Amino acid sequence: MKWGIIATWEMALEGVIKVSNGLDKGMNSADAVEEAIKVVENNPKYRSVGYGGLPNEDCEVELDAAFMDGDTLSIGAVAGIRNFKNPISIARKLSIERFNCFLVGFGAEKYALANGFEEKNMLTKESIDIYEEKKKKIIEGSISPYEGHDTVGMVSLDMDGKMCVGTSTSGLFMKKKGRVGDSPIPGSGFYVDDNIGGAVATGLGEDIMKGCISYEIVRLMGEGHKPQEAAEKAVEKLNRELIKRRGKAGDISVVCMNNKGEWGIATNIDKFTFAVATADLNPTVYLARNEGGKTRMELVKE
Amino acid sequence: MKWGIIATWEMALEGVIKVSNGLDKGMNSADAVEEAIKVVENNPKYRSVGYGGLPNEDCEVELDAAFMDGDTLSIGAVAGIRNFKNPISIARKLSIERFNCFLVGFGAEKYALANGFEEKNMLTKESIDIYEEKKKKIIEGSISPYEGHDTVGMVSLDMDGKMCVGTSTSGLFMKKKGRVGDSPIPGSGFYVDDNIGGAVATGLGEDIMKGCISYEIVRLMGEGHKPQEAAEKAVEKLNRELIKRRGKAGDISVVCMNNKGEWGIATNIDKFTFAVATADLNPTVYLARNEGGKTRMELVKE
Repeated sequence: MKWGIIATWEMALEGVIKVSNGLDKGMNSADAVEEAIKVVENNPKYRSVGYGGLPNEDCEVELDAAFMDGDTLSIGAVAGIRNFKNPISIARKLSIERFNCFLVGFGAEKYALANGFEEKNMLTKESIDIYEEKKKKIIEGSISPYEGHDTVGMVSLDMDGKMCVGTSTSGLFMKKKGRVGDSPIPGSGFYVDDNIGGAVATGLGEDIMKGCISYEIVRLMGEGHKPQEAAEKAVEKLNRELIKRRGKAGDISVVCMNNKGEWGIATNIDKFTFAVATADLNPTVYLARNEGGKTRMELVKE
Repeated sequence: MKWGIIATWEMALEGVIKVSNGLDKGMNSADAVEEAIKVVENNPKYRSVGYGGLPNEDCEVELDAAFMDGDTLSIGAVAGIRNFKNPISIARKLSIERFNCFLVGFGAEKYALANGFEEKNMLTKESIDIYEEKKKKIIEGSISPYEGHDTVGMVSLDMDGKMCVGTSTSGLFMKKKGRVGDSPIPGSGFYVDDNIGGAVATGLGEDIMKGCISYEIVRLMGEGHKPQEAAEKAVEKLNRELIKRRGKAGDISVVCMNNKGEWGIATNIDKFTFAVATADLNPTVYLARNEGGKTRMELVKE
């Protein structure tokens, strides 16, 4: 029986390992995405997702997350939510709503509280220290703000053929209050249709949303492209258009999987790691890099 | 010389008339979209956009708006913003930012204040009365919440061939606090690429975002479809998928224009009005309706 899960960045490995055992025994795709992303959200070592995520310019941790079901096309999303432990779980819960499935700011917090989600101060001592140190360097001009944007995004396929995707992030470091990137934006940060497959993105959200790249990758797979072809084609096109029209392109990296468990990835940067497991592949981390417009990958850890 | 502007709903007519004179004399596409949408935002008669827009469940007017430039693909958007007169102008200003171009809630308000945008209490006495009356009926069960979602969206083409799109809305009436629909979501509520054309949507945002319909329409025009074909094809497909997978589809209406000034519209409802003006057509309002899967239109006002 086919199953699979693919996720952005090496930080996803622990969650991927955890749920790959489950998927192999019949765990459903929605639970797999939620559980694996919670592992990343709960680990304070990861500075770009959940607990311990780096704060915005006002030193507040504002989180974005989304969940999509490839069968019903149901979407749930939160943006700019503070002080809740697992944004991915709130997004999944919102995905069952016909109305009001995408909530931001206080509205998202109000919903989470009313629905019994666990509150938590998501700002750690370590993140405050990094914030203070980097803020000093930004003021001195020795570093730029808006570096660091490692959204965790996952695509999963279960043995019943059902696919789901999820994303979770604290967004750009030093972002302006209320800033939303691509992660909670349907079609940009994520998309899934389990008649075809799913895709998620990570990078500079402001540029990723200019090309609706996750929708485009799923569409290309639906036209018959293999996931690797679809991912490379979409990243290459958006990167080229951004350079042509704007002089430069922000970071864009994507992972995708079709409903046969075949997967693909693409990046326009020189260091993008990702984790993948399928019925035929133990959980593995690869490093991908862009070389002259093509994405190359090498094994990091299996 | 070609130029054109097309907009959702009859309420857009006054703005369309105002800027069509400008476009005919060389006004640029960005100014046309912003100025025409401001006319709708400023008119308290229109209960779904700007001043006088109907409030959320907490009786607050929370507004969403977006602006996109078809040349640079620059996007600016705000969601859940309160107490500012012209959200479309804030969105346009944000579109020049490389980072932090999509802001929600307090963050959007903070930016608007810092950038000198005019503050205004957007809740009118008339809107409070409607809110109170409808709330009573909703509690009695004689009407449903979440009726009414008439986003103003516009696509414009100027004589230099430049295209822009914009949207502005107060969202679903009685929406939950912080709810975001399709209007500020790139690819769903709007998309434009002036090598091809632009599209905007109005209807049930929660369903529109399941299909990235504005991106899809622009893509179809890019494949060579005439605007009318592209609009009908995209609406028909999303409507069909939603019914197949979810048992029903929310309201979906779209307008689009290509970079030759040819336009198209489609709807899955029986009363969708829109306003259009081009170098060859005086400002005109049509009524469109879905008849057996096809969109028909008739003249309302010229």
